[in-house]
Amino acid sequence: MIRRFGVSLETELLDDFDALVESRGYGNRSEAIRDLIRAALVERDWESGTVEAAGAVVLVYDHRRRDLQARLTELQHSSHEHILATMHAHLDHDNCIEVVLLRGAAAEIKAIGERLIATRGVKHGRVVSTTLGDRLA
Amino acid sequence: MIRRFGVSLETELLDDFDALVESRGYGNRSEAIRDLIRAALVERDWESGTVEAAGAVVLVYDHRRRDLQARLTELQHSSHEHILATMHAHLDHDNCIEVVLLRGAAAEIKAIGERLIATRGVKHGRVVSTTLGDRLA
Amino acid sequence: MIRRFGVSLETELLDDFDALVESRGYGNRSEAIRDLIRAALVERDWESGTVEAAGAVVLVYDHRRRDLQARLTELQHSSHEHILATMHAHLDHDNCIEVVLLRGAAAEIKAIGERLIATRGVKHGRVVSTTLGDRLA
Amino acid sequence: MIRRFGVSLETELLDDFDALVESRGYGNRSEAIRDLIRAALVERDWESGTVEAAGAVVLVYDHRRRDLQARLTELQHSSHEHILATMHAHLDHDNCIEVVLLRGAAAEIKAIGERLIATRGVKHGRVVSTTLGDRLA
Repeated sequence: MIRRFGVSLETELLDDFDALVESRGYGNRSEAIRDLIRAALVERDWESGTVEAAGAVVLVYDHRRRDLQARLTELQHSSHEHILATMHAHLDHDNCIEVVLLRGAAAEIKAIGERLIATRGVKHGRVVSTTLGDRLA
Repeated sequence: MIRRFGVSLETELLDDFDALVESRGYGNRSEAIRDLIRAALVERDWESGTVEAAGAVVLVYDHRRRDLQARLTELQHSSHEHILATMHAHLDHDNCIEVVLLRGAAAEIKAIGERLIATRGVKHGRVVSTTLGDRLA
Repeated sequence: MIRRFGVSLETELLDDFDALVESRGYGNRSEAIRDLIRAALVERDWESGTVEAAGAVVLVYDHRRRDLQARLTELQHSSHEHILATMHAHLDHDNCIEVVLLRGAAAEIKAIGERLIATRGVKHGRVVSTTLGDRLA
Repeated sequence: MIRRFGVSLETELLDDFDALVESRGYGNRSEAIRDLIRAALVERDWESGTVEAAGAVVLVYDHRRRDLQARLTELQHSSHEHILATMHAHLDHDNCIEVVLLRGAAAEIKAIGERLIATRGVKHGRVVSTTLGDRLA
């Protein structure tokens, strides 16, 4: 069910907001406000650490590093109950980018991500927090 | 001038948002939405680097480190046209916290802050981006 | 080629760092320091906006939203020269998580990501900055 | 006491790091590495929420807003045991910037900051996490 309510904004702030709505490609103000609200809620959930969430770990590494893929795969299997899927793409002759999608408590996702990133030979990594979506209409 | 417009939100999302409005101490939804919008605008401005902005540099250091205060003061004076004020407080026998308020182009504020943080003996520092407020109603 | 140099740290800071190295699963201090350095370099590159980089966009959405998948696919095709690959996984009956891997100037990756996130029906999205890896040994 | 240990880095990464050390104004590599390590430790501490920490709340507001200063002062007094000092500077005819320095558990500092930021009339605010410095050599 959709509910509608009124928001009061200073004209100047509203004009500035409309420019942001336009430049980011939102269809209308409600859509942009919904996104700001959802982002604040997801951030709050991740801070709690215990909320069941989804996340992604993005890794960049040199696939020629001895045993690196084997070690990454082994680490992933040891957390298989949290891993949804993995995707791999080639950046150049040596470098690959890999994304691991996870679900679990925010703190667990983070710990798995940190361990993958810490693996010798991984050049850069990031853990990204998002949501299972079920609590966000 | 204040303008009023309607926002449509799914009931579930609105309930979750109302809990956030309450827990953060906002008086009403408009006030919370205004803050989300302003935060998005300030972030966009800082990414551009060139917008005239305000900022703060927070430093924690051991005041007994030889010449440290003298060096920090000298650095601040060499950027005096950007510095509004400085405050200092004592954390314990050795450690102090200092805040330097700045105004200028976002990129300049950042560069001054990084130089202060890089000064030998500063234990931790952060550059905080905010706004001059004039473009935010 | 590997080069070796000496670092001086206060005993207390070193002990605290060793605990971090251990808890994140790094094999040794050099590996952890390498990661801290690379993360700082990638952050600096993204701030410049113009450096050629890799990135990921993580999207959570309800696949039953009318035309949503079609619109997301269309948007991706209009930026096909920047898109490396896309992966999709199911979170529950309604919600999916999708990751789009991109390469291009940091500012372009960000703009494409913002547009995907702004698409009506996307519940949450994040743009993740990383590196092509070629400039990071 | 200072301890010295060796770090191994690829030549290319070291060159890139040296450029960063130079551009941020660090005196030498050890100083820059110390800062990267301390920043990682402070971040870890703040994530735990319970570690005793220092923080700053930066607020930008229009001082002519009725009762705003009175309300901000009242809020600060109700948390006086956590507040070290407050500084105020003028940005233009209407706008001021205020910094409140706090100490306490990270989660408490954050909650006090959120409440100050949520006060009607505050245009922008940020909570900044730092350290008491005693655990960081």
